Amino acid sequence: MKRVSVVGASGYTGGELLRLLVTHPQVELVQATSRSHLGEYLYQVHPNLRKRTTLKFSDPETLEPVDVLFLALPHGQAQQRIDALAATAPTIIDLSADFRLHDPADYARWYGAAHAAPAWLDKFVYGLPELHRDELRTAHYASGVGCNATAANLALLPAVQAGLLDAGKPIVVEIKVGSSEGGAEGNPGTHHPERSGVIRTFSPFGHRHTGEVIQELGLADVSLTMTSVDLVRGALATAHAAVKPGVTTKDLWKAYREVAAANPFVRLVKEARGIYRVPEPKVLAGSNYADVGFDLDEINGHLVSICAIDNLMKGASGSAVQCMNLMLGFEETLGLEFSGLHPI
Amino acid sequence: MKRVSVVGASGYTGGELLRLLVTHPQVELVQATSRSHLGEYLYQVHPNLRKRTTLKFSDPETLEPVDVLFLALPHGQAQQRIDALAATAPTIIDLSADFRLHDPADYARWYGAAHAAPAWLDKFVYGLPELHRDELRTAHYASGVGCNATAANLALLPAVQAGLLDAGKPIVVEIKVGSSEGGAEGNPGTHHPERSGVIRTFSPFGHRHTGEVIQELGLADVSLTMTSVDLVRGALATAHAAVKPGVTTKDLWKAYREVAAANPFVRLVKEARGIYRVPEPKVLAGSNYADVGFDLDEINGHLVSICAIDNLMKGASGSAVQCMNLMLGFEETLGLEFSGLHPI
Amino acid sequence: MKRVSVVGASGYTGGELLRLLVTHPQVELVQATSRSHLGEYLYQVHPNLRKRTTLKFSDPETLEPVDVLFLALPHGQAQQRIDALAATAPTIIDLSADFRLHDPADYARWYGAAHAAPAWLDKFVYGLPELHRDELRTAHYASGVGCNATAANLALLPAVQAGLLDAGKPIVVEIKVGSSEGGAEGNPGTHHPERSGVIRTFSPFGHRHTGEVIQELGLADVSLTMTSVDLVRGALATAHAAVKPGVTTKDLWKAYREVAAANPFVRLVKEARGIYRVPEPKVLAGSNYADVGFDLDEINGHLVSICAIDNLMKGASGSAVQCMNLMLGFEETLGLEFSGLHPI
Amino acid sequence: MKRVSVVGASGYTGGELLRLLVTHPQVELVQATSRSHLGEYLYQVHPNLRKRTTLKFSDPETLEPVDVLFLALPHGQAQQRIDALAATAPTIIDLSADFRLHDPADYARWYGAAHAAPAWLDKFVYGLPELHRDELRTAHYASGVGCNATAANLALLPAVQAGLLDAGKPIVVEIKVGSSEGGAEGNPGTHHPERSGVIRTFSPFGHRHTGEVIQELGLADVSLTMTSVDLVRGALATAHAAVKPGVTTKDLWKAYREVAAANPFVRLVKEARGIYRVPEPKVLAGSNYADVGFDLDEINGHLVSICAIDNLMKGASGSAVQCMNLMLGFEETLGLEFSGLHPI
Repeated sequence: MKRVSVVGASGYTGGELLRLLVTHPQVELVQATSRSHLGEYLYQVHPNLRKRTTLKFSDPETLEPVDVLFLALPHGQAQQRIDALAATAPTIIDLSADFRLHDPADYARWYGAAHAAPAWLDKFVYGLPELHRDELRTAHYASGVGCNATAANLALLPAVQAGLLDAGKPIVVEIKVGSSEGGAEGNPGTHHPERSGVIRTFSPFGHRHTGEVIQELGLADVSLTMTSVDLVRGALATAHAAVKPGVTTKDLWKAYREVAAANPFVRLVKEARGIYRVPEPKVLAGSNYADVGFDLDEINGHLVSICAIDNLMKGASGSAVQCMNLMLGFEETLGLEFSGLHPI
Repeated sequence: MKRVSVVGASGYTGGELLRLLVTHPQVELVQATSRSHLGEYLYQVHPNLRKRTTLKFSDPETLEPVDVLFLALPHGQAQQRIDALAATAPTIIDLSADFRLHDPADYARWYGAAHAAPAWLDKFVYGLPELHRDELRTAHYASGVGCNATAANLALLPAVQAGLLDAGKPIVVEIKVGSSEGGAEGNPGTHHPERSGVIRTFSPFGHRHTGEVIQELGLADVSLTMTSVDLVRGALATAHAAVKPGVTTKDLWKAYREVAAANPFVRLVKEARGIYRVPEPKVLAGSNYADVGFDLDEINGHLVSICAIDNLMKGASGSAVQCMNLMLGFEETLGLEFSGLHPI
Repeated sequence: MKRVSVVGASGYTGGELLRLLVTHPQVELVQATSRSHLGEYLYQVHPNLRKRTTLKFSDPETLEPVDVLFLALPHGQAQQRIDALAATAPTIIDLSADFRLHDPADYARWYGAAHAAPAWLDKFVYGLPELHRDELRTAHYASGVGCNATAANLALLPAVQAGLLDAGKPIVVEIKVGSSEGGAEGNPGTHHPERSGVIRTFSPFGHRHTGEVIQELGLADVSLTMTSVDLVRGALATAHAAVKPGVTTKDLWKAYREVAAANPFVRLVKEARGIYRVPEPKVLAGSNYADVGFDLDEINGHLVSICAIDNLMKGASGSAVQCMNLMLGFEETLGLEFSGLHPI
Repeated sequence: MKRVSVVGASGYTGGELLRLLVTHPQVELVQATSRSHLGEYLYQVHPNLRKRTTLKFSDPETLEPVDVLFLALPHGQAQQRIDALAATAPTIIDLSADFRLHDPADYARWYGAAHAAPAWLDKFVYGLPELHRDELRTAHYASGVGCNATAANLALLPAVQAGLLDAGKPIVVEIKVGSSEGGAEGNPGTHHPERSGVIRTFSPFGHRHTGEVIQELGLADVSLTMTSVDLVRGALATAHAAVKPGVTTKDLWKAYREVAAANPFVRLVKEARGIYRVPEPKVLAGSNYADVGFDLDEINGHLVSICAIDNLMKGASGSAVQCMNLMLGFEETLGLEFSGLHPI
């Protein structure tokens, strides 16, 4: 049994980590910290943990040494304290955006400020196992992933890896997201009467996660357009790209099948009948799957590639636990077996 | 044209008043006040008013004299300022809870504090036209109504007026409500990820609106149980009462039909087929109708009576404008013609 | 008072027409036909009409002569009977897809079958007043509009009219839609447990409404991508296009402002603060507005233009009544004054 | 490893069984039958099973012998074929209503027809472990439970077991339910535009599950009132009863605590602060917990007792697997460890 703690555990990614760690057969949850809920039972904030743990939120200033430390702090905080945090655990997985980009200039471009610990940027492996599985097996530090970046990256990964895209053409990724993406802190726009039933294109381009897509897929001209819809968990990326001349639907089938075969949490969804013919986040709540699909307009080479995820799982805490499994030498899928629900 | 102003117009009942007044053929909207949105266009807070009015929120301290003043302030404020407010208009309709109960002792019981202007309590007519139509025609001061009280009162009104209830038996009114009932100010429980998809019985008994049901229907033993569900607008009251021995379904049909015939905004819904057999708030969004229905278990005399309303319309601003129409001698339904939507 | 009838009035566009016509001050509703609900009261199918009309559904084979006939039949039926239908009224407005495209070859391309009455195609004016206001004033026959086509057309109209688009670059319009778009007939995929909470990209390209965008805007390379989300009423089009070199945000402001100024039901929504900064269908339920907005990435000329509508109003029945107003010489906005609700 | 099959596996309770059995560590899923989806992969109907099983739906006429047979057929079918079905497995768990009531007269009363196999009624143990744990350990036949009956039974169980209720007073249980309760077959009222956003009291009293509450709790005068709300999974029972004179809140605390302590899947939820103070089905999706709570109006002895469940889990398939665990001598919670999600 490995000892693990979660720093910043009262938010949604922190809570999802707690859920996964409490039932993980090879780890023991030692501490879960929260300043704002200090002393409360974990289940008072995360009611799904009632009867699962009697742990209380502890003070982030009194961290015990553990084998693995998960950081689920608001963006910008981990980089301020990374040296102190690293002293408490040999393995760190940071779910914030602080250590996802390797180049300090990229960080400054997308986050509008200089990085506080640029020397650490290269020590972190980008925590998407579908892209960095082998590196993760020997890594001590892994970053989390941006949920929207993950939906975009996995939508495009098969075509990129197979070299089928016309990289000179612009790529537009339209991402529709649920409300949990905004985190546990409310604002006037998340008040239920205002947020319910919306289709709200809140970011036409320039979303910070774009930097992760550019870095990880090596693409130059990519835009992410973000639209909020009425759902709590889930993100769907619909990517529009151009394929190289001569690329056929058959080529794409092969590329997508290979990626699904090589990755336990990637599934190809492309059915000719039934209700569930395309990837949909609805059936993924709580699961770590990324469902991918595509369609090619062979007349003009317009590829529409789709990826559905649970933003709190494959887009955050699920990928983080998957990274932990690889970093500790466990089975990659351990503790991530929940299949999702139908109907829900 | 009568000149009207709304004090406290940035909240949900205030906004609904603005919508109704802007399109009312016999009134001119003079001022809409808001401290927190002072100087903003009304349509920046209430986006449905874009291209309908270029008015801006004004300062509540600079009220112009008008014919009618609507008060949509948070509970407790109108009673503090009622003398000053009454100086600006001969007719006042207060949508808060401040002037609904006539007896200061009742106010203290349900609101937990002494009333600040007890001498005013008897000057206000309780603003439900279905109960006080004639008084309203000559009144200068009308209170608004509690939305839950209105659903309960109109569910029970036909059986009470016809003398069919066994008043010695307890009455339980189960009310299911949408999120707009809580008002425009958010709190942690109204954050969309926490509020979406709930069935949350937040008040088992003791709800403040109970006082209005007791006062208006003359009932002794009534409980209101409140449950939040996933909807923005709408309230459904399901009332459980016992009828007197010998009362039949036919007696109830007669009683409910009479109330529906006597009131332009009450409809009896009791169909044997189709999708919409019973009263439902879903089809009432934006309309001023109260749909009522009932079923009697003739074996044990258990009456289940149902009333559906839009809590912001019949349960608040719609009834207030209906009161204004009566008080100013207009057609009772003027400006309240919107029928609701199907589907929605 | 003009006499009007609706053929095919039990569906959603038919029902919405009924709602508008029942309250329209210059028309009298004579007949509403339905084979499947023959003899039922209109309000048994459309519960919002209770207490508004005591009309029953009549037989489509027994049409009385009227001034205006609205056709809300399933696609393909109006073209079969157009001669007979035209004998009953001098003015016809057909809401189906039968008479939207002028070229029989276009019809065959998008609908996969030869048109049954090709001689009639040129007699119909495409019923979007924002594009054909003057023609409609003298027209006897108007088609309805495709809801998705309307969202796409109005999103792009300002930039197209001002000549700002680089027409050589492909245009992708991502449209998110509510469930009422699929009509009143259910199928396994519209069963609530399966349809609730979806983000389902059901058509990556090739949607039939594309033909209307090509015809009306004169664009060559346009794709519509359709995604269902959890909402009943509403459609949001997010259009991605490239502007000509040198086009600035200021140029676009001018173009969008001009279109909003010239059209009573078009509003420009582009706010720097508040909750409602961009066009959203949520606030448009029941209203005839099309809210438009845009953002330009000045670095690469990527224009994101947005249009929100209520698919049953501006995208169908609202535009049809607006056409009727123009064709009969009424005020263009008559009977279409409902502002939408906030919150909802 | 025990061999198990599911008869009637394309519906919602069947699908939920499949999900649980596919991941249960001590059983092997042998067959899943469906006439309507014969030959299709299970994951084409239940998309959460993709990559979890490559089994196809098989013919119910070709059942292999197994250790445990689950029946998830429409009500009325199991009783027609029980002898043949019993020949294929020594242990049967029937999730339909066919074997829940022990007295043929009760069956006839609530289901309106004579039972086809009355001799079998007494062989089945009512499958709610919280009521019949010890009997189930030695049983060969267990019935499933009605979802609404389960919510009502567990809401009232603590007060009934402790003898705190005034059994002479009527009990009203208001139950709010999600759309999955109606099963996988759609009808006009489950079409998303009609079902979305409803608060629809579809059954004022007389619901069939009432018979299970009367039988299991020994109560005489109980009514169940059913209201549909906008949610897919989940049921909340709010029970209104009278306590015996002198019963205090402290007595009830003791009674509810004892039941929660004695049953691994019952949790007492009664918090003074935080968002989640009372039982809510929202946080139970996919979990087997029944969350219970209560409030007592000490002035008049009005007890409001609440129970939240996932209707497909504790209200159907989860309790059935819990029964299986007891009947086969496994740990009671095996395969039922999923904690539910927050937020969702």
